Amino acid sequence: MRKPKALKPGDTISLVSPASPLCPEQTAKGIGILESAGYRVKLSPSVYAAAEYLAGSDEARAKDVQEAFDDPETHAVFCSRGGYGCSRLMPLLDLDRMASSRKLFSGFSDITVLHAAMNRRGLATLHAPMALTLHTDREPWVYESLQAALGGRNPITDGAPKGSCLVGGRARGQVVGGCLMLLCDLIGTPEQVVMDGKIVLLEDVDEAPHRVDAMLTHLINSGSIQGAAGIVVGEMTRSDERVDKTIGARPWREIVGDRLGSLGIPTIIDFPFGHAKQMLSLPLGIQAEMDANLGTLKYTESLCEQD
Amino acid sequence: MRKPKALKPGDTISLVSPASPLCPEQTAKGIGILESAGYRVKLSPSVYAAAEYLAGSDEARAKDVQEAFDDPETHAVFCSRGGYGCSRLMPLLDLDRMASSRKLFSGFSDITVLHAAMNRRGLATLHAPMALTLHTDREPWVYESLQAALGGRNPITDGAPKGSCLVGGRARGQVVGGCLMLLCDLIGTPEQVVMDGKIVLLEDVDEAPHRVDAMLTHLINSGSIQGAAGIVVGEMTRSDERVDKTIGARPWREIVGDRLGSLGIPTIIDFPFGHAKQMLSLPLGIQAEMDANLGTLKYTESLCEQD
Repeated sequence: MRKPKALKPGDTISLVSPASPLCPEQTAKGIGILESAGYRVKLSPSVYAAAEYLAGSDEARAKDVQEAFDDPETHAVFCSRGGYGCSRLMPLLDLDRMASSRKLFSGFSDITVLHAAMNRRGLATLHAPMALTLHTDREPWVYESLQAALGGRNPITDGAPKGSCLVGGRARGQVVGGCLMLLCDLIGTPEQVVMDGKIVLLEDVDEAPHRVDAMLTHLINSGSIQGAAGIVVGEMTRSDERVDKTIGARPWREIVGDRLGSLGIPTIIDFPFGHAKQMLSLPLGIQAEMDANLGTLKYTESLCEQD
Repeated sequence: MRKPKALKPGDTISLVSPASPLCPEQTAKGIGILESAGYRVKLSPSVYAAAEYLAGSDEARAKDVQEAFDDPETHAVFCSRGGYGCSRLMPLLDLDRMASSRKLFSGFSDITVLHAAMNRRGLATLHAPMALTLHTDREPWVYESLQAALGGRNPITDGAPKGSCLVGGRARGQVVGGCLMLLCDLIGTPEQVVMDGKIVLLEDVDEAPHRVDAMLTHLINSGSIQGAAGIVVGEMTRSDERVDKTIGARPWREIVGDRLGSLGIPTIIDFPFGHAKQMLSLPLGIQAEMDANLGTLKYTESLCEQD
């Protein structure tokens, strides 16, 4: 894997919106947090564009992303929010050129699609809160984790809770994954995430219980997940409130237990990342080890190379 | 393709619930319609079972489906409703043995999964209203279409409206497809629907606009749809009411036009089938021809062989 350079005070972060549009007011706080840490934040031309559920046309969003990666003055490319839209950009981006950079790329949710494309081309990336999602007050360890990851230090901060054990055991491997729906949307495409021998992160938001079941079943029926070394489930945030009454309810933790519990793969559940209320920043494409009995994930190498 | 035998008065239809549970009261009318047409309706043991969003355990649902296909007294296997659950049954069914029968298999929505498995094993099937969905009053041509299909006659009944032209042109080929979400859930699995050279039916219900976009993009990014001979879109029922306000709205017909309109494939939109208020019963695995300029689909062979 190619590691990005760790950020230093004064370095430039380019902010891009490859998916859905965002509220400038809500984004301001997230930008302020990055600036307070000493980084310069450069807004891409279409960062606040809006065209229905997309932050501008596919061409404009793709141009922003490509130019941010190509820009010699930019040290990191941060996504402002997810929502939906990255999968539409796949045919428009020079993914090989992006991955050949040593820029630190960060985001989560819909951004899972771009992580997958970068990781499979050898660039390690950062699954972390975005400008938009930083506007909510979080525990201090959330910010500490993000800052640690950006500086190439250990992102599993002391204040963060451990996960719970779903299937006991230990595993080591490269960390991949992200938002479950996007991982499913990638199946059968050139950017499908290869999970064999990997530690797979899985989480999602606002999905009805039967859809969580369907997506996990898709991972199983496609043979995607059976070869994983370990699984780290975050939260299926608000799933239990998103019941389709004509179909029926089931607590999401039961569904995860039902679908993943019998695979014989060490599995942690409720690990704090992604759409959970408090979240760690987790490097992707980087080696880690997990102990499902203890509910712990530990990186055995740094996301970044010190320059 | 292996064609099922046309139903005759006195023949037995086995009713199975491979997906979500159903309301017996609502099912009664659908059963009555089949009985009035002279068919005997045999209820499978778990047809009214309920376990959260599933009509009983996977084992019980799979047993019902398998036994209905194996039963020498059964001439047709009808699904009572969709919802969610067929994909969980894939590892539990002897799909080859089911497809080697000459039983008429019928359903839609989640049942798309079983259609795909039967069609790719050479058994033609029927994409048609189910016991549960027949409880609502429909136009006379809806019932005429179903009865015609069951008897091996032309299911495109005179009263049915035509579709509209999205991309002009004519095509011929075997009809495949069904519910968009299930077609996406099958990508990368052994039951993925091969669309090359086929006339592909696409429809769905209760999906947010950005999800309709994501699913059509999945068909494109996986290379599934580009080789289709023709596309017949039904309705994305209630999509425009299912907007995720944090993401954004767009009328579903615009989304379909955006995603499918540039593929250069003859495409009809608003053809009446699936979750639309009024729906034709459409054979799958059977040859048809379409004229997108006229909005018409015509079968050039019968679903059934007269015995």
